[in-house]
Amino acid sequence: MVFKIGFLKLGCIGSALLLEFMLDERAERQDLDVRVVGAGAKLGVEQAEEVARRLLEFKPQLVVVTSPNATLPGPKKAREVVKAAGIPTLVVSDSPGKKASQELEQQGFGYIIVEADSMIGARREFLDPQEMVLFNLDVTRVLAITGALNLLTIEIDRVIDAIKKGLEVTLPRIVVDKEKAIKAASFSNPYAASKAIAAYETARRVADVTVEACFVVKEWERYTQLVSAGHEMMRQAARLADDARETEKSQDAVFRMPHYDDGSILGKRRLIEKPAKP
Amino acid sequence: MVFKIGFLKLGCIGSALLLEFMLDERAERQDLDVRVVGAGAKLGVEQAEEVARRLLEFKPQLVVVTSPNATLPGPKKAREVVKAAGIPTLVVSDSPGKKASQELEQQGFGYIIVEADSMIGARREFLDPQEMVLFNLDVTRVLAITGALNLLTIEIDRVIDAIKKGLEVTLPRIVVDKEKAIKAASFSNPYAASKAIAAYETARRVADVTVEACFVVKEWERYTQLVSAGHEMMRQAARLADDARETEKSQDAVFRMPHYDDGSILGKRRLIEKPAKP
Amino acid sequence: MVFKIGFLKLGCIGSALLLEFMLDERAERQDLDVRVVGAGAKLGVEQAEEVARRLLEFKPQLVVVTSPNATLPGPKKAREVVKAAGIPTLVVSDSPGKKASQELEQQGFGYIIVEADSMIGARREFLDPQEMVLFNLDVTRVLAITGALNLLTIEIDRVIDAIKKGLEVTLPRIVVDKEKAIKAASFSNPYAASKAIAAYETARRVADVTVEACFVVKEWERYTQLVSAGHEMMRQAARLADDARETEKSQDAVFRMPHYDDGSILGKRRLIEKPAKP
Amino acid sequence: MVFKIGFLKLGCIGSALLLEFMLDERAERQDLDVRVVGAGAKLGVEQAEEVARRLLEFKPQLVVVTSPNATLPGPKKAREVVKAAGIPTLVVSDSPGKKASQELEQQGFGYIIVEADSMIGARREFLDPQEMVLFNLDVTRVLAITGALNLLTIEIDRVIDAIKKGLEVTLPRIVVDKEKAIKAASFSNPYAASKAIAAYETARRVADVTVEACFVVKEWERYTQLVSAGHEMMRQAARLADDARETEKSQDAVFRMPHYDDGSILGKRRLIEKPAKP
Amino acid sequence: MVFKIGFLKLGCIGSALLLEFMLDERAERQDLDVRVVGAGAKLGVEQAEEVARRLLEFKPQLVVVTSPNATLPGPKKAREVVKAAGIPTLVVSDSPGKKASQELEQQGFGYIIVEADSMIGARREFLDPQEMVLFNLDVTRVLAITGALNLLTIEIDRVIDAIKKGLEVTLPRIVVDKEKAIKAASFSNPYAASKAIAAYETARRVADVTVEACFVVKEWERYTQLVSAGHEMMRQAARLADDARETEKSQDAVFRMPHYDDGSILGKRRLIEKPAKP
Amino acid sequence: MVFKIGFLKLGCIGSALLLEFMLDERAERQDLDVRVVGAGAKLGVEQAEEVARRLLEFKPQLVVVTSPNATLPGPKKAREVVKAAGIPTLVVSDSPGKKASQELEQQGFGYIIVEADSMIGARREFLDPQEMVLFNLDVTRVLAITGALNLLTIEIDRVIDAIKKGLEVTLPRIVVDKEKAIKAASFSNPYAASKAIAAYETARRVADVTVEACFVVKEWERYTQLVSAGHEMMRQAARLADDARETEKSQDAVFRMPHYDDGSILGKRRLIEKPAKP
Repeated sequence: MVFKIGFLKLGCIGSALLLEFMLDERAERQDLDVRVVGAGAKLGVEQAEEVARRLLEFKPQLVVVTSPNATLPGPKKAREVVKAAGIPTLVVSDSPGKKASQELEQQGFGYIIVEADSMIGARREFLDPQEMVLFNLDVTRVLAITGALNLLTIEIDRVIDAIKKGLEVTLPRIVVDKEKAIKAASFSNPYAASKAIAAYETARRVADVTVEACFVVKEWERYTQLVSAGHEMMRQAARLADDARETEKSQDAVFRMPHYDDGSILGKRRLIEKPAKP
Repeated sequence: MVFKIGFLKLGCIGSALLLEFMLDERAERQDLDVRVVGAGAKLGVEQAEEVARRLLEFKPQLVVVTSPNATLPGPKKAREVVKAAGIPTLVVSDSPGKKASQELEQQGFGYIIVEADSMIGARREFLDPQEMVLFNLDVTRVLAITGALNLLTIEIDRVIDAIKKGLEVTLPRIVVDKEKAIKAASFSNPYAASKAIAAYETARRVADVTVEACFVVKEWERYTQLVSAGHEMMRQAARLADDARETEKSQDAVFRMPHYDDGSILGKRRLIEKPAKP
Repeated sequence: MVFKIGFLKLGCIGSALLLEFMLDERAERQDLDVRVVGAGAKLGVEQAEEVARRLLEFKPQLVVVTSPNATLPGPKKAREVVKAAGIPTLVVSDSPGKKASQELEQQGFGYIIVEADSMIGARREFLDPQEMVLFNLDVTRVLAITGALNLLTIEIDRVIDAIKKGLEVTLPRIVVDKEKAIKAASFSNPYAASKAIAAYETARRVADVTVEACFVVKEWERYTQLVSAGHEMMRQAARLADDARETEKSQDAVFRMPHYDDGSILGKRRLIEKPAKP
Repeated sequence: MVFKIGFLKLGCIGSALLLEFMLDERAERQDLDVRVVGAGAKLGVEQAEEVARRLLEFKPQLVVVTSPNATLPGPKKAREVVKAAGIPTLVVSDSPGKKASQELEQQGFGYIIVEADSMIGARREFLDPQEMVLFNLDVTRVLAITGALNLLTIEIDRVIDAIKKGLEVTLPRIVVDKEKAIKAASFSNPYAASKAIAAYETARRVADVTVEACFVVKEWERYTQLVSAGHEMMRQAARLADDARETEKSQDAVFRMPHYDDGSILGKRRLIEKPAKP
Repeated sequence: MVFKIGFLKLGCIGSALLLEFMLDERAERQDLDVRVVGAGAKLGVEQAEEVARRLLEFKPQLVVVTSPNATLPGPKKAREVVKAAGIPTLVVSDSPGKKASQELEQQGFGYIIVEADSMIGARREFLDPQEMVLFNLDVTRVLAITGALNLLTIEIDRVIDAIKKGLEVTLPRIVVDKEKAIKAASFSNPYAASKAIAAYETARRVADVTVEACFVVKEWERYTQLVSAGHEMMRQAARLADDARETEKSQDAVFRMPHYDDGSILGKRRLIEKPAKP
Repeated sequence: MVFKIGFLKLGCIGSALLLEFMLDERAERQDLDVRVVGAGAKLGVEQAEEVARRLLEFKPQLVVVTSPNATLPGPKKAREVVKAAGIPTLVVSDSPGKKASQELEQQGFGYIIVEADSMIGARREFLDPQEMVLFNLDVTRVLAITGALNLLTIEIDRVIDAIKKGLEVTLPRIVVDKEKAIKAASFSNPYAASKAIAAYETARRVADVTVEACFVVKEWERYTQLVSAGHEMMRQAARLADDARETEKSQDAVFRMPHYDDGSILGKRRLIEKPAKP
């Protein structure tokens, strides 16, 4: 039997960018069928509701709702629609979503809040399509290498596995901080881990700069300078994350966790080595 | 009136990763409503058809079908379903899609084939979720900086504009090669352009290595080594593309094309400068 | 007449490391005599008092007291001893010193608090003499290139000049944040400024990691990992600051402010150009 | 009982910049009290004498006199004043100090001459406070990573230990060349050692350029170009030294020698490992 | 007895640049005498013939003819002259030489065709002496680090050894592709090998760009841009090759194959280790 | 009429590696015919004499004798044979050749001594064919970018031109130091020039390390470490030279001096610009 998972994407966050592909990175899983529905950059209530209804037509057994700031009305509406259909729902969001965590738990949602998934520098004088793409690539690189995306994948796979096996489902409720992320990355070299933590923290602090530039500073010369600084900070975090991975390569110690066809997760450390069940 | 555009995503290509967000990079456009429907990594006929039907419920005025290798049955089915509904359809795909270009034109589809959007190294001994993410970030970085994604955005905006104005719609039929991409990037420094062309060509040639490793070489030690080499090649292309952009920054000459609220495209060259209509 | 300035150094902060030399970078000023007295790494009350008394013997006309965390008893004692002698006193300290700013103002002290001058990762499993040196070089590099040290020099020179001329002395009371620092750096290229701001913010946030690792986390494996991460973060900030300066070099636009023999500050932008009075 | 050590600093050399902190890098030593007295950038006889007298009031058991060019009258006067008080005196200086080595030995002084501690490019058209700081950071980085500063610390600790124990004191008389420095750095990877030696030699040769530019060349365009070249050379040496340390990190083999509270020197090689007495 | 080998060099290819020195890298071999004759950049029939006759006066026992494009009349004439003298002849050339491989074999020549030895961007608007030198350094760096030059040396040494021992001589007939090259490089770290393969493939594809720019594109602005791009691509390949070697250094695992005085090839892996016969 | 120039190459120096190609970088000169004769790595008297006689058969109008250390008997014999034939002779050599300069002048030879063309680390434990190649690429890169090779080309072209025109021939007698080299490089950005000077000086000082390691130090562990350090120093010099050129690229200001078909030297600064006669 094939498990049906639905992704409901509102707006753009690094944690969601390639999430559906991470569950089936070589399109070889025979136990999984995936649907994604989204409304692009907008995350209004109207779009959220329509998108949610569309996703339900697919009859998913698990829904992952991704959005920036899970406290906004749009994401809220989306998850309520899904919940009303009785489907286990996992919310993936960024730091402002932390404020919703208690409410989410009370309402039975799972959540994974990724602290380093910082807000983009959304000012017209600065942000054009290309700059938007580059920022998202940088933040996603940080999330991938530091282990945050590993953690997301592992947790979603865990829930899928439980539902498949008819076990009781415990939805994850995690705020991904630097230490939780790094643990999921399974670094071999501790300096690689240090660089990854540093990248994670730097990425996390980008939001301080972009939020100030987008919502506090009014003079356009100042906020343009600041959003640009925020993106430089994220670019530097991405480069540091890259250094971490290169350090692992230099010792032939990159940890890999490919999926097997049945959805189980294998593991390997040396490049020229067959992956094995743990 | 708001224009409705639908993205039908089958599988993962760099050109499609952030495409819907590029049309509305700050979520401020009042003239556009976007829907995205996808089936994750899989691109079988069944998924394609269901996804296409779901997208039609949104009643889009333009549909963009993205997939690797547009000659495959899944992508073909998807666009046929959309076409049967009488909706203008643009196919976005990678180099193997070139083989379908004549057929696409005859059937009235537009297409944008992005040569440098090379295939990933999809071997289980190598490709895990993290490696998959990193490759896609690298290829998308190359496509973004070299101008290929600019070209995509400009062309889609052009079609939207024509339909909005009730003009005759000419769907683009473009194979994006190094020179077409670079032109859309509007580099100021010619060495930046040289680096970008070099990055584009390097990225384009990654497919030679990954295709050989995925479909020709049978010994697992050899193909594992080769897919890894293909990803190193893409990583290096991404770094070279990054050098190109840094060169432009060093002269304060990064060209930016933010959208205005009405969907028109502004332009600017200096960082501390207001964007203007061209 | 020669102006006599005294530096009282308690403990080690990046802002103080080369401060006395910044006032007379080529040892050519004929209007200035400098004395420095310090107690090394310790900043206890006893050392502070003795050191302060020793400095007074020099009969300075202005005293600069540098220390981490200006709220500690040692630094407090030192400045009280100096104040009791009726000498204008400027406190230079790091972020924890902000808590003392109101008190300092009420008591008539000037102060310059440098936000990015973050605490070192002082754990025995990690910090040896070499690591201590390297961290201080990194933080000082950030402070130098981002303009924070320029601001310190300019302000101290301003006070000296006022006292020399018998004008009323307004001691500076400044919390150096990213924008104040960058302004003092006079960058020509705005992306250089963006990189510098990013470096400053990254450096500022190092303290969050090192403070947690030094005072909150108890397990030695965890805090060792975290202090190491804090230092990687500072190293990356220093490299980004260095990129900012290299960007200025690439346009032959490094701003230089050498002192003239009489203590006035000259200015120049091109490398092969004579400095001039502004 | 607490040992009292005094540092008498005349002018600025990389070897002296953080020397007092290297003896007590976490401010935890209970066996040591430190005093530093200096006169800033100037090293005239008058300043030297006054500073020396001030330091004697502290009643140090060992005095370290640091200065560029130990043959100059200022440094000479300083050490004579200290010697007249019967206190063991160690001279720390740069290459021009080699000429004084025989005389220093005959007069009973210890000395450590650090060859790579090259002269700065002290020309007004080039050297402003910021450039001065950056050069000193670069040279100190080279000295730290290549082991020269380790050697200084070890030797001073050795003398302190001997005096504390009432043993006969043998003051060090060492010209720190590339091989003596590298030995003190205890590199694990021989290519790291090669890079460090290369950095040391490059740093040492900077003086040839800066001395020529400061004392031989008269045309300002030429000497401005040359002092700038000297600083680029030092910057490159610092980057190479940094590569050496990164190489050690990539094998998790950075050697660390933290002080224990009683002043003894511990050792460790892996990051996540407790330091131990050798 | 001393073996006499002659190199006949027509035009410039990276494979030939230092080839004669690779056989006797420290000028200590007592079993070998080398002569090189060439005609500089030109490779016309007239020069080729004269140069060949000159080389025969040396009475070599083996001749290596190096040139771009071994199908051209000049290189053809040169090898015919040598063959007529009954001397075993090895042709070393670049990819266009592949077309001659069958003919070469039939005529009894050995050949080594190095795929990555790509054509330079020979357009007057771009290629001056300095640019020509830099391209050749980059391509030779790729060939050296990826193992292609190792393979050349090993094969020539093998032929020399056979002739010296009076054994039957089998001239090599090899098209050096990425996997043959990398095998000869004996990498220890598989990621180093991946980077080297990536560098080799990138270098090989440079010819696509330079050939198009030199022979297909007619507009000077376009071909100038393209030859520049080709050189950037080669520079990036060289940097990636350099990364591969640095990776090996970081594990102290650079494989070295120095010649012994009698011409035999030794081997070693650690830097501080004596080379040994295999 | 075509001018005939002969290159007599003894041993390997960076200045000679591509010298004959620099005179005719695109093989398009109609006024020049080149012959090169060499004896590989060896530079004994016997080889030198034979090679010289062979070159004379070509009847060159100018001979360039290249070798390390022009004071050795082999190079001396070679130039005497050429001189006896009445042909103007230019000696190109490295720093040890400086000792022969007076004698060379008295005997009517021209000479160009390139200071930065430092000796290789010729120890069997370290130097294998690959390492030999890489060192030569690094030193040649330094010589190319810093302008030393420009100077060689310009001077040889000047002599050719004079002989072609029947003018009196003044052979160059130049010791290429840092300032002469940089002048020939025509840098636009003064920081690029600073980096180039720094690279030149670093390269020049490599010989101090390699000479010590090859001729002074006897313990194999020590000299192996030192020759490796010498090569790291040269590698770093090459990277710094590369930075200099990249700086010029970042301002689109690389100066190019392509030859015209008649051998005259053109000039240009912008990439997309036609070269012109000066």
